[in-house]
Amino acid sequence: MPSETVNPSGQIQPADSVGIVTPQSARFDRPLELACGRTLREYTLVYETYGELNADKSNAVLICHALSGHHHAAGRHSPGDKRPGWWDNYIGPGKPIDTDKFFVVSLNNLGGCHGSTGPSSINPDTGKPWGRDFPILRVRDWVHSQARLADLLGIEQWAAVIGGSLGGMQAMRWALEYPDRLRHCVVIASALKLSAQNIAFNETARQAITSDPDFCDGHYLEREKLPRSGLAVARMIGHITYLSDDGLGRKFGRELRSGTFEQGVEEEVEFQVQSYLRYQGDTFSGSFDPNTYILMTRALDYFDLAREYDHDPVAAFSHARCRFLLLSFTSDWRFAPQRSREIVDALIRANQPVSYAEIESPMGHDAFLLPSERYRRVFFAYMNGVAAETAPEVN
Amino acid sequence: MPSETVNPSGQIQPADSVGIVTPQSARFDRPLELACGRTLREYTLVYETYGELNADKSNAVLICHALSGHHHAAGRHSPGDKRPGWWDNYIGPGKPIDTDKFFVVSLNNLGGCHGSTGPSSINPDTGKPWGRDFPILRVRDWVHSQARLADLLGIEQWAAVIGGSLGGMQAMRWALEYPDRLRHCVVIASALKLSAQNIAFNETARQAITSDPDFCDGHYLEREKLPRSGLAVARMIGHITYLSDDGLGRKFGRELRSGTFEQGVEEEVEFQVQSYLRYQGDTFSGSFDPNTYILMTRALDYFDLAREYDHDPVAAFSHARCRFLLLSFTSDWRFAPQRSREIVDALIRANQPVSYAEIESPMGHDAFLLPSERYRRVFFAYMNGVAAETAPEVN
Repeated sequence: MPSETVNPSGQIQPADSVGIVTPQSARFDRPLELACGRTLREYTLVYETYGELNADKSNAVLICHALSGHHHAAGRHSPGDKRPGWWDNYIGPGKPIDTDKFFVVSLNNLGGCHGSTGPSSINPDTGKPWGRDFPILRVRDWVHSQARLADLLGIEQWAAVIGGSLGGMQAMRWALEYPDRLRHCVVIASALKLSAQNIAFNETARQAITSDPDFCDGHYLEREKLPRSGLAVARMIGHITYLSDDGLGRKFGRELRSGTFEQGVEEEVEFQVQSYLRYQGDTFSGSFDPNTYILMTRALDYFDLAREYDHDPVAAFSHARCRFLLLSFTSDWRFAPQRSREIVDALIRANQPVSYAEIESPMGHDAFLLPSERYRRVFFAYMNGVAAETAPEVN
Repeated sequence: MPSETVNPSGQIQPADSVGIVTPQSARFDRPLELACGRTLREYTLVYETYGELNADKSNAVLICHALSGHHHAAGRHSPGDKRPGWWDNYIGPGKPIDTDKFFVVSLNNLGGCHGSTGPSSINPDTGKPWGRDFPILRVRDWVHSQARLADLLGIEQWAAVIGGSLGGMQAMRWALEYPDRLRHCVVIASALKLSAQNIAFNETARQAITSDPDFCDGHYLEREKLPRSGLAVARMIGHITYLSDDGLGRKFGRELRSGTFEQGVEEEVEFQVQSYLRYQGDTFSGSFDPNTYILMTRALDYFDLAREYDHDPVAAFSHARCRFLLLSFTSDWRFAPQRSREIVDALIRANQPVSYAEIESPMGHDAFLLPSERYRRVFFAYMNGVAAETAPEVN
């Protein structure tokens, strides 16, 4: 088998890529009752699919995205597209989420800013952008809306629901809300609930956004403003905390941008890490909706898997009927291995089948997105087992 | 000995307090050449002293403050003063820095905003506040200006120079710049230089300040503005990182402010930790100068003890002639014990006398300010030894 092919536009296409993908859109007219008590009358979900659904529809896998993710998880949107989807390292032919075996569904969550209905969409009642009036969402709202997408696609039961970070919270919630609708739950670098420190970082990020005068109390779109600098600071906070101290050190150390150190030269940006962070902040603030960032971080803060099970995760997990794979990364300090071990412990005490691997990585929380040999091997082996259970119609 | 006395205003005065203190001010007219190449023509330093200087002036101790500190380290400014100085836990009669034995000098550093010349002072050349035109300062500039204060007070040699965090960097720099002018160097929760992660947090804090429109390119005072919200966000970032995850968890957990959780109630501030952080940010932004915050964090970022010793801390420390005490705190992740051990290792390899204790504490970097029995005992024992060396004139 060749390791790459040349597509019609002349661009080299790696053999393990899903290739060019086109987002699709699904409109839902049945009102969705939300955890906050409000109802969303109608909404759109944007999604992509990779691979083929087999005849008995048993090989479908759902990808749940994290804080700043979206539906574009793999492949490219055009031959000239510079960057592939956010999880292209792990989705594709021969990759752990093997598109030769699975039919992969990846959506932009409700409240997002990449095409699905969210704060930057038009509120049908007012004809203006929702802005800050968009309902507060909880992880369970996403799970309910994802279930409707499954209905639409004719998928009765997912072979697996998979997510990292906030995506892992959705996967766990799936296991409790719809125990019969998934066979495997893959939870990567996640937690039963955030720690006070995590909430504090999110709060500071939100504060940076809302205190930007261009935030206009959340109605910046109507006023043709954008709280870019607030969102940039929010992203910088996120960025530092998703990397490890060691990872930042390896990447930048205390390298000076100019290569030399001259006391007396007053430079605005002196260390490499400063210029990197500013670039990251600026880029992000040009492409992400601030109200969506607030909405997503609040969903993170509020997530507490066991809240309605008398705060007992064992009682919560006793409702699950799927198998679990848990993964964590040694240098991840926002979703530390300890938080994954709490999940594993609760699953074991609830007599649920669970596999767990702690992956050695210097890259902090971001490790769940990055190439890593042991991560790939463990993930691949598990998913290979999942594929073996599905009907052999598609090869 | 009574454990407390009642002062004239009827307020109870603990016996281990230095009591009511009054800041003093020293004016320096001799120009100070700065590391950045610029010269400060004249400047004022505000300071406090506690205890009495003995006849041969051998019992003086210098306190160097950290990022947001100032000269008011112990006692109260008036009988009604609600809070004592920032290090009142460790300075006073019978405390580790025992004012029955030592003459303690604590100043507000150059560039500060509590009375010493800094960005909010008037630039004599323009008649307007310096603002962002105030020279960039390095730790060595502070040490040089502190040496002039010592000259003014007639102190040839400090019994000890003591500091935590950024203050510890000043203490180490003293040991290299003026090896004959101190007998002991006490370095608490500090580092040879910041890590990339630390620089990244400082950069994000500065970005929050400078992107606030009320920053006015650093000349907010002239325009009667104040980038309060930017400074509040900067302080929030600092605050989270100076506490440990565990410390924040113990203090707040995921406690909800209202005591109950009701999905559907849209509250701006829902978790205790949010309201605490907002309060901290607001309070700080009303009392601290944003340009000073930028200046202090840059001094932190640039500090690199061994830079001009060919990046070899052993070579650097070979110039020292004092004894060292190093202290660190187990849960401090911004100035982790590992960073103190690097200093200890370099001192040992440089054949310098050093004592080191790693204090068990859940309170993160802030532990260096907080009461802790083992910290107090170790610190007290060491300082008791320092006092025993000084002449016995003062008792």
